[in-house]
Amino acid sequence: MITYDFEKSDGPLYLYIYKCIKDDIISGKLKSGEKLPSKRAFARNNGISTITIQNAYDQLVSEGYIFTIPKKGYYVADIMKDIYTAPQANISFDINVPREDPNVIYDLSDNGINPDNFPFSVWAKVSRRVMSEKKEELMKISPSGGVRELREAIAAHLLSFRGMLVDPDQIIVGAGTEYLYGVITHLLGKDKIYAVENPGYTKLLKIYSKNGIQCGFASMDESGITAAELNRLKADVAHICPNHHFPTGITMPACRRHEILAWANEKNGRYIIEDDYDSEFRSQGKPIPTFFSIDGCGKVIYINTFSKSLSPTVRISYMVLPVHLANKYYDTMSFYSCPVSNFEQYTLARFMNMGYFEKHINRMRLFYMRQRKGIMDAVRKSTLGKYCTIIENDSGLHFLMKINSDIPTEKISKMLYDNGIKINSLGDYRLSGDKFENDYYIINYSVLTAERVTKILKIIEERIIIGNRE
Amino acid sequence: MITYDFEKSDGPLYLYIYKCIKDDIISGKLKSGEKLPSKRAFARNNGISTITIQNAYDQLVSEGYIFTIPKKGYYVADIMKDIYTAPQANISFDINVPREDPNVIYDLSDNGINPDNFPFSVWAKVSRRVMSEKKEELMKISPSGGVRELREAIAAHLLSFRGMLVDPDQIIVGAGTEYLYGVITHLLGKDKIYAVENPGYTKLLKIYSKNGIQCGFASMDESGITAAELNRLKADVAHICPNHHFPTGITMPACRRHEILAWANEKNGRYIIEDDYDSEFRSQGKPIPTFFSIDGCGKVIYINTFSKSLSPTVRISYMVLPVHLANKYYDTMSFYSCPVSNFEQYTLARFMNMGYFEKHINRMRLFYMRQRKGIMDAVRKSTLGKYCTIIENDSGLHFLMKINSDIPTEKISKMLYDNGIKINSLGDYRLSGDKFENDYYIINYSVLTAERVTKILKIIEERIIIGNRE
Repeated sequence: MITYDFEKSDGPLYLYIYKCIKDDIISGKLKSGEKLPSKRAFARNNGISTITIQNAYDQLVSEGYIFTIPKKGYYVADIMKDIYTAPQANISFDINVPREDPNVIYDLSDNGINPDNFPFSVWAKVSRRVMSEKKEELMKISPSGGVRELREAIAAHLLSFRGMLVDPDQIIVGAGTEYLYGVITHLLGKDKIYAVENPGYTKLLKIYSKNGIQCGFASMDESGITAAELNRLKADVAHICPNHHFPTGITMPACRRHEILAWANEKNGRYIIEDDYDSEFRSQGKPIPTFFSIDGCGKVIYINTFSKSLSPTVRISYMVLPVHLANKYYDTMSFYSCPVSNFEQYTLARFMNMGYFEKHINRMRLFYMRQRKGIMDAVRKSTLGKYCTIIENDSGLHFLMKINSDIPTEKISKMLYDNGIKINSLGDYRLSGDKFENDYYIINYSVLTAERVTKILKIIEERIIIGNRE
Repeated sequence: MITYDFEKSDGPLYLYIYKCIKDDIISGKLKSGEKLPSKRAFARNNGISTITIQNAYDQLVSEGYIFTIPKKGYYVADIMKDIYTAPQANISFDINVPREDPNVIYDLSDNGINPDNFPFSVWAKVSRRVMSEKKEELMKISPSGGVRELREAIAAHLLSFRGMLVDPDQIIVGAGTEYLYGVITHLLGKDKIYAVENPGYTKLLKIYSKNGIQCGFASMDESGITAAELNRLKADVAHICPNHHFPTGITMPACRRHEILAWANEKNGRYIIEDDYDSEFRSQGKPIPTFFSIDGCGKVIYINTFSKSLSPTVRISYMVLPVHLANKYYDTMSFYSCPVSNFEQYTLARFMNMGYFEKHINRMRLFYMRQRKGIMDAVRKSTLGKYCTIIENDSGLHFLMKINSDIPTEKISKMLYDNGIKINSLGDYRLSGDKFENDYYIINYSVLTAERVTKILKIIEERIIIGNRE
């Protein structure tokens, strides 16, 4: 008869008994085929309840250490021959997580959002109302492309802000554009050559490469990429930011758009992905009509995000598919769940429907205009002003600046970095890796404050300009 | 001198002028190279402000219809030769969105969540506090694997609920398990053969196939899949639900776990993906120790989700990677943004840290136990009770039921469907497509109410059992 020292038990008694018996089985003290005492006998002999023994036995059965023969009792399983002793693994426990660079104090490459600019109180209010009024909808699985209410709100926004007339069913909501890029490669096929703009958004290249896509780098003239360049690359798909190219700021003019559309129509299977990532912040004039609007043949996928217009930490983006691709999506990919939480989908939908989004965009557009003007003025008035040329590009959250100096760009970047200032030049976005001696710098100002600008300019003046003259 | 009928303008005047000039350029009325009137002359002649003309000209310049020569003026661009007329596209505008089946009144395949069971008021309270106290963090880009606070909360949960000791940096947060399956295929490589359980989770197969993965279907005995079966399939990776297999409910016993681990250790590059999707709801006994816990060699990826424990509409899941794969993730994939919104990451983290998650799970476990018992009792007491066998499987949100009848399963399913009842049988989860004459049905009860069960049983009694006897 097995007995154990119940004094040693801390925690539920059944777990203790389970563990004792299991250890005895593994150590070989209890042999395969051996009969265990009946629950009642075990319980009586030890002065505990049969339920406790029952629970311990059940657990051992469910883990396969013992088995039961109905009306006969419990037996030790033939487990020893299978017990596998893990080899002495010689594995490391060091995890190398990418950390922030502690040397960087002023980050001019940061294009995030200042917490003061996020409409927290309105967002919280809308979110609270959604939770109290939409319980049923919040618990109902979202259609793969996103909840109807959000897609309708996006369609209304596209109509009023971009003059685009789209069916909400053409809209697919995703958790960030990165997610949607992946969906696009499934829809268009992975055997195609994708042309990406050079210089351009380096992450795009990484994502396409991860998805097994072959990419070609399309050079640009002052109007953007050309059909000739797409032909040279033998591209099937052109992924472009025609409305405000990152980082050069180029807006593709109408005639070039027609040229690229003509290229797409020359052959079946050719597509244009129109990435309209920051169209909300063009600061003057009517925004350029989108490729999607002037396309009559279902050749354009329009893609946009709330990362710039709301916050990159709210992971909501969307794309508008031509009808035949929308149907392909529903046929072949709608088994995927929408990756965005219903809570955020409904909150954003209501935020848009109640006009808060439009107000927020207008406020932010003004804020960024002033921000840009303030920073450019500060630069122009500073000692640096005499040594640099600024290129505004009428929109977006950055401007370009060239330092007119004999010191090569890389050396200036290094000097700035040594003084705690991180800054990117166009070279950092050249996919082919070319570097220029005297390159443009990209000044992101979305999170810059006047105070920080003053400090940065002072560092540049004292340690770089004067330092180099001496 | 150009003049336009300004009476016709509705909306901003500059837009009207822009449109008139643009139309004249496209129609050829204004010829390439033609000089436009100076802003001042144009304004004076029409009695409008030069700013208005300036805006119209700027827009035309940015779209490429006109160009400017400094100190000379504005000229019509040579646009005609490039203007591209879209071919008369013969494309459809019909979108075929998958719709809910209007015939289905009672859906026994629905494993969603009843809105009454989601802790709305606590969630709203926590979310509100997060928004008022964590503005900075909410606007700071999340690390690729998820915000620290959530990963720490998950690590604490895994320790107390599953006895798993993991470094928060081993945890990668994703928007649903589907997202994480994609990440896994990148980490382990797409050239590998993945074994999936048969019967099993059919969506898994679809997702792996979409990701270009070759899958083998591993048959199961009463303890789950076997090493022999993995060898037969020449599998490199085994994706399994060892703790509560869906849909059979099998729990893999200890000895079989060691056998599968031994298989994984026989060769480099072999891995086990342990899908622990509903472990929170095992209703009795201590949960089985996970594969991840007994693995000493970094062979197991543990994956779990809040879909079952919280709601499928909150898209948060996570996986725990062995250290070397975590490092591979940080090296090669951390350029991906975390697809889950900061708002929900911080809300969930606090919800867990304040003990609400544990309370919720305990409440739900009890609820589901009662739910299951109530429904099984109702079935047993009904006329159907005499004709069926119920297999409980101690956990999860469904049980299995076999109808002891000569009528083939497919015919019963059809009869039920014709009466508005949707129900799945094991055959619907057999990846190889085999159907059995007399198969088990899967009864999901997470959203069933007593009232609906009574109605369903009445339909079955009156229209199927009695109907077939007559």
